[in-house]
Amino acid sequence: MPITDSDDLSIEFARAIDAASPLREHRERFVFADDTIYLDGNSLGRLPRRTSQRLREVIDTEWGRDLIRSWPTWIARHDDVAAALATGVLGVRPSEVTIADSTTVNLYKVINAAADLRPGRSVILIERDNFPTDLYVVQGIAKARGMSVRVVDSDIDGGLSVEQVRSALDDDVALACFCHVSYRSGAIADIEQITGVLHEAGAVAVWDLCHSAGAIRTPLAQARAEFAVGCTYKYLNSGPGAPAFLYVREDLHDQVRQPIWGWFGQREQFAMGGDYDPVEGIARFTSGTPAVLGLSAIEEGVRSITDAGIDELEQGGRLLTGYGLVLADSWLAPLGFTVASPRAASRRGSHLTLHHRQAWQICQAMIARGVVPDFRTPDRLRLGMAPLTTSFEEVWRGFDAIREIVETDEHLQFPAERARVT
Amino acid sequence: MPITDSDDLSIEFARAIDAASPLREHRERFVFADDTIYLDGNSLGRLPRRTSQRLREVIDTEWGRDLIRSWPTWIARHDDVAAALATGVLGVRPSEVTIADSTTVNLYKVINAAADLRPGRSVILIERDNFPTDLYVVQGIAKARGMSVRVVDSDIDGGLSVEQVRSALDDDVALACFCHVSYRSGAIADIEQITGVLHEAGAVAVWDLCHSAGAIRTPLAQARAEFAVGCTYKYLNSGPGAPAFLYVREDLHDQVRQPIWGWFGQREQFAMGGDYDPVEGIARFTSGTPAVLGLSAIEEGVRSITDAGIDELEQGGRLLTGYGLVLADSWLAPLGFTVASPRAASRRGSHLTLHHRQAWQICQAMIARGVVPDFRTPDRLRLGMAPLTTSFEEVWRGFDAIREIVETDEHLQFPAERARVT
Repeated sequence: MPITDSDDLSIEFARAIDAASPLREHRERFVFADDTIYLDGNSLGRLPRRTSQRLREVIDTEWGRDLIRSWPTWIARHDDVAAALATGVLGVRPSEVTIADSTTVNLYKVINAAADLRPGRSVILIERDNFPTDLYVVQGIAKARGMSVRVVDSDIDGGLSVEQVRSALDDDVALACFCHVSYRSGAIADIEQITGVLHEAGAVAVWDLCHSAGAIRTPLAQARAEFAVGCTYKYLNSGPGAPAFLYVREDLHDQVRQPIWGWFGQREQFAMGGDYDPVEGIARFTSGTPAVLGLSAIEEGVRSITDAGIDELEQGGRLLTGYGLVLADSWLAPLGFTVASPRAASRRGSHLTLHHRQAWQICQAMIARGVVPDFRTPDRLRLGMAPLTTSFEEVWRGFDAIREIVETDEHLQFPAERARVT
Repeated sequence: MPITDSDDLSIEFARAIDAASPLREHRERFVFADDTIYLDGNSLGRLPRRTSQRLREVIDTEWGRDLIRSWPTWIARHDDVAAALATGVLGVRPSEVTIADSTTVNLYKVINAAADLRPGRSVILIERDNFPTDLYVVQGIAKARGMSVRVVDSDIDGGLSVEQVRSALDDDVALACFCHVSYRSGAIADIEQITGVLHEAGAVAVWDLCHSAGAIRTPLAQARAEFAVGCTYKYLNSGPGAPAFLYVREDLHDQVRQPIWGWFGQREQFAMGGDYDPVEGIARFTSGTPAVLGLSAIEEGVRSITDAGIDELEQGGRLLTGYGLVLADSWLAPLGFTVASPRAASRRGSHLTLHHRQAWQICQAMIARGVVPDFRTPDRLRLGMAPLTTSFEEVWRGFDAIREIVETDEHLQFPAERARVT
């Protein structure tokens, strides 16, 4: 692989790689409003140009002009978008995915459904570095159901291994909820192997795909994983707070229910029947009225991913993070940075994280320069490289800025203590 | 009151009333894209002109240009919008309301919290004509908690009376969930009196304000009601699937929890602590990432209501529905229609419902003419008169269309059987 072997750390080299990239034409479909170096597309994805136009039509025509007459269109869109996300992003059947609510609410639904599938078991397995909202949802459900939470003591920088999971399992584990890609380190958990180990122990698998969907392949189907959830505002570029998605393996649809019974999951909804009678299929996992603006943004966001292709994006992400590793080793290691992500390409998601004891100050100095990273407690600088929208030149400029900041002590003029977020 | 006493049923009279209305200037702030007669603003409110412009800024600038740097703005907006809705629309304290999720999910949260307040009691009281999603949520919670559902046999057209509620109460009722305005008849349930009766019996009050918030006063504070929820896409004109709101009486905030524990309700959220530790105050009723586009639309939608004033709107709605009653009695009663809403102004919300055995066919004929009503099972034509956006001329034209359709049997060319909505 020429990039990781190259000694050519010039910006010209980065530009040459960009010019040759098969993803170049896809990147041009996004809004780049100014010269911000954006290394946080794994937190909030960029705006597709088509989404801007599309939402105007949804607002001014579908809502403003057609009013409730648009509901048949919106209901059909709900199904169409979920199907496109299922097949084009997640590699599962169109009937196995729906769009609904937030990731948190969807986790609440599927974890309850998973626990229902193993009524005799009382343990929910999590990883200590699961995304916090996953931990909180699990804690609330365990309390309400009289279950207990068991924590796999994974390696925060190295990720969750099959062996760690295996050693935490016994006959009392009902289900496990793990993140496919760790929000801190970017480490990939092996969905196929870990789900296999869970199934051997009779446990149900619930996967959180927030940091993977749209960036790397998600082998739910191969693993025969039971449940998954994820958000659409990161790599799926669907905008702040756009609705989340939810996957349930098809053979389970008629065995399971979720706890939030609502009229969008009701058979013949507009007959307004008095007793809850859930539809067959994945729609029983919906509850209330769908968020139409967000849904319409997802349609464009998913299209941006499926047009490029997940395999191409996974490969592109590996090249970007591999290039980031080269720059980190060459430029930043001498300045006190250490790598807080796996080095093996097969274990890296699409972001790289670096330790530095002044990470918080460096983060602020970068933002002041128009370079946007993310900070993660306690000493991590997280650098997202969304394969669809981040260029090699952007990575070069971002790392070059970090190098300059630390070399010149520019970051020391920023507060060392993080302000309390209320 | 000149309108209800008048024999002048001419369109000129309707126009004269419109010209004199204090709400006229407020109506002009909305999009009227064509000459549709829209009698369904109680299902999906019209688009405020400012919302169209505002959402472009949110999409193109806040998301497209500023990306994650907008999160402090969005989090502040979340609080500001909830406070504006609390004081300007609901008449409660700014600290008592939050914006989150859908009505269905919020009902799930507050009904669980209400049940927690009365651990020794096992009955949830509902009205048989509650909106279906309320019934389903309650049924799911009752099943999960081993509680039972008791149904007050209210009068569908006349609404829920204090006496009906009183006779259904005993020491085992933990809480009651009622709609302030009935989605079918438009009948108003007396929040103050009914909450008083509930409190006398030791039960907790949960009010669904979907069909009242933004149209009439909601005396939660006077009643000392514990909980309420409502949507924002009807009279609050915030667009299809915009997030819902949730009210919890302030003295209860630290006593109650809701079941969906998520990171937006966590103390020092971005410290990413591993154990759920809910914030004080109403924010503990939030779960996941807020829907920013919907939230921004609510800011404009709420402004449209607060600029006009709830008292003015309640008065305007009564005049509109009173006028509708005169037209129904004069023109439609001879054609087989009967009124399916209370006649007393103090008992009417802002829509009128009429029975007709061919209501479904009439509904279709109206839509074909560009007159938009709503159909409600089994024989009801629901005519919404949003006080902020519906003019007397629109009501006149709508009722005139109904008269013409039925007089000429125009509706008989439409299918008598409602197509199954899948």
